[in-house]
Amino acid sequence: MKRVAVVGTGLVGGSVGRALRREGIHVSGFDLDAARAARAVEIGAIDEVAASIADVSTGAEIVLVAVPVGHVADAVVAALDAGAPAVTDVGSVKVPIVAAVESARPDLAPRFVGGHPMAGSEQDGLDGADPDLFAGATWVLTPTPTTDMQAFNAIRALVAAVGAEALAVTPEHHDALVAVVSHVPQLAATTLMDVAATRGEEHATLLRLAAGGFRDMTRIAAGHPGIWPDICVANREAIVAALDEYVRALEDVRALVSASDRDGLLALLERARAARRRLPSAAPLDESVAELRVPVADRPGVLAEVTTLAGVMGVNIADVEIAHSVEGGGGVLVLLIPERGTEAFEAALTERGYHPSRTPLP
Amino acid sequence: MKRVAVVGTGLVGGSVGRALRREGIHVSGFDLDAARAARAVEIGAIDEVAASIADVSTGAEIVLVAVPVGHVADAVVAALDAGAPAVTDVGSVKVPIVAAVESARPDLAPRFVGGHPMAGSEQDGLDGADPDLFAGATWVLTPTPTTDMQAFNAIRALVAAVGAEALAVTPEHHDALVAVVSHVPQLAATTLMDVAATRGEEHATLLRLAAGGFRDMTRIAAGHPGIWPDICVANREAIVAALDEYVRALEDVRALVSASDRDGLLALLERARAARRRLPSAAPLDESVAELRVPVADRPGVLAEVTTLAGVMGVNIADVEIAHSVEGGGGVLVLLIPERGTEAFEAALTERGYHPSRTPLP
Repeated sequence: MKRVAVVGTGLVGGSVGRALRREGIHVSGFDLDAARAARAVEIGAIDEVAASIADVSTGAEIVLVAVPVGHVADAVVAALDAGAPAVTDVGSVKVPIVAAVESARPDLAPRFVGGHPMAGSEQDGLDGADPDLFAGATWVLTPTPTTDMQAFNAIRALVAAVGAEALAVTPEHHDALVAVVSHVPQLAATTLMDVAATRGEEHATLLRLAAGGFRDMTRIAAGHPGIWPDICVANREAIVAALDEYVRALEDVRALVSASDRDGLLALLERARAARRRLPSAAPLDESVAELRVPVADRPGVLAEVTTLAGVMGVNIADVEIAHSVEGGGGVLVLLIPERGTEAFEAALTERGYHPSRTPLP
Repeated sequence: MKRVAVVGTGLVGGSVGRALRREGIHVSGFDLDAARAARAVEIGAIDEVAASIADVSTGAEIVLVAVPVGHVADAVVAALDAGAPAVTDVGSVKVPIVAAVESARPDLAPRFVGGHPMAGSEQDGLDGADPDLFAGATWVLTPTPTTDMQAFNAIRALVAAVGAEALAVTPEHHDALVAVVSHVPQLAATTLMDVAATRGEEHATLLRLAAGGFRDMTRIAAGHPGIWPDICVANREAIVAALDEYVRALEDVRALVSASDRDGLLALLERARAARRRLPSAAPLDESVAELRVPVADRPGVLAEVTTLAGVMGVNIADVEIAHSVEGGGGVLVLLIPERGTEAFEAALTERGYHPSRTPLP
């Protein structure tokens, strides 16, 4: 990987740029806000400014689109039209973007793989750009049955180059998951803060009584609000479903409290505590790796099926390639995955009719 | 203040003990768990171990009861029966405790003032005892119309000695407030974690997608669950009311999302963000102070009325005394409060028929 283009030089685009340039990769950038693009050169986030998405995409091996959710699909289409061999984005919602690109350019869409780095900051400006923003973070990629293997691998390499770990899930699954771990938590924190804040005369006292737990829980409510309306609209259905689930669960809790059901409350608290303590802090980067060889038929969708199965099982794919059979008709999918998760993943593949074999690596 | 007794030598009792001993105050302790009391001496949290609540209370100017919510009232009554001139507690719920003490010992109850330090830690053991646990924290006191002024002042001085700021509110108000800023947030975080954790096969992926916001928001769900069932039962009504309010607010948010109401969502997010940013980080400790003199009738309840009015307005009372008129019939309540909040507080007092006058202090 030698040349990468970044469309949108805000916090995420700028951080990716700085991380890639540190690895010796040439980064050109484009931003609708010319002053911001110029500033990106100044702070070392990009090497040079291009005049348009078409210009910046020409000659780039990968185009990373880091613009607000509502503008991603158009930018992706422009990059594909300019001939980019691999295009990805960093939007918080994937189904509408993937669908829009597939509908606009059914022929070029295989070169686009949706992405979403799970690392953020309350800062949303270029000046907060940090080459280590993604170190150890999970970076979701959403391949589809038509995804091009070379595009996927190039984007996976970009993710690795900025220090993140790629996790493949389907676009639909991604949107349902982030509704639960990102969008509903944001709305829940915002709502809690708002309930506390709209108590009129009691306000000052209430806030003085807010101890560390309340502060932790409402911290995300202090973040930049501007991005959320678009996200809520784009991921409307998944958010409404997850909110309904959350409200139902809160009503169950209300019933436990109302009935003074100590045992029921304790069981819930202990279950949640155990789950919270299991939250991985950051993905391990230097563990032993195994090579898994999976003979596959030469049919569409195998890559998406196998990689998203790995995603569902929390197995990070460090590398993937298809070794095609010289005599045609199928080939072998070669995956590098952490040794730790191999057995369960092999079993799941076997259950789905695959015949994986494993080679431990030194 | 020379001698303080601590009943219950866990995290809070031990932290208070260490903070008071650092100020040269003698601290004796009692704990039903004799080994824990002995350990409290070892780590310097108390000077000596007493054999019972009656023993530890004898000769103490203040008895601090730091035992689980369900056992507070009995311990307070035992301390009052032993002749303690001032007794306080640190329970997270106040109405049931205050009512139980008043009902058991109507004659001695004026010497008891409920308390609740708004400082906590996931650690719940004596070994986490920290003399700075309460530095800058708000410590709620819940005087009632019958509260004895000397007892209140002694306890207020204890709160100041450990570095906290006393804030007076009524027991009822306290319970409603902590339901909103402590109990419901705990249940909301627990429920959110539980919803995320009970998604079966998706679990591993879901947790890998959990970025910083989700971690912050669910942090309190990792705390010790044991204390919460009792708190939920003790503060049942206020918690159910606050949960209902929270669920109603979430349903409003659901309606905004469902209707793709960008403007409504943005207004909510901006309101919550502004409120979160106004959250005081820690009470200022070294600001200029004013003396407020409020002539009062010699009738019960004046102390509670004036101090809880200050509490409602977020005004910290640094000191309070009654200068009785030599000719009988009323006197002057002398309050030391931060200069900053004086004007609004004076206006509120005036509105309620008081005639305060102010003297700035050097």
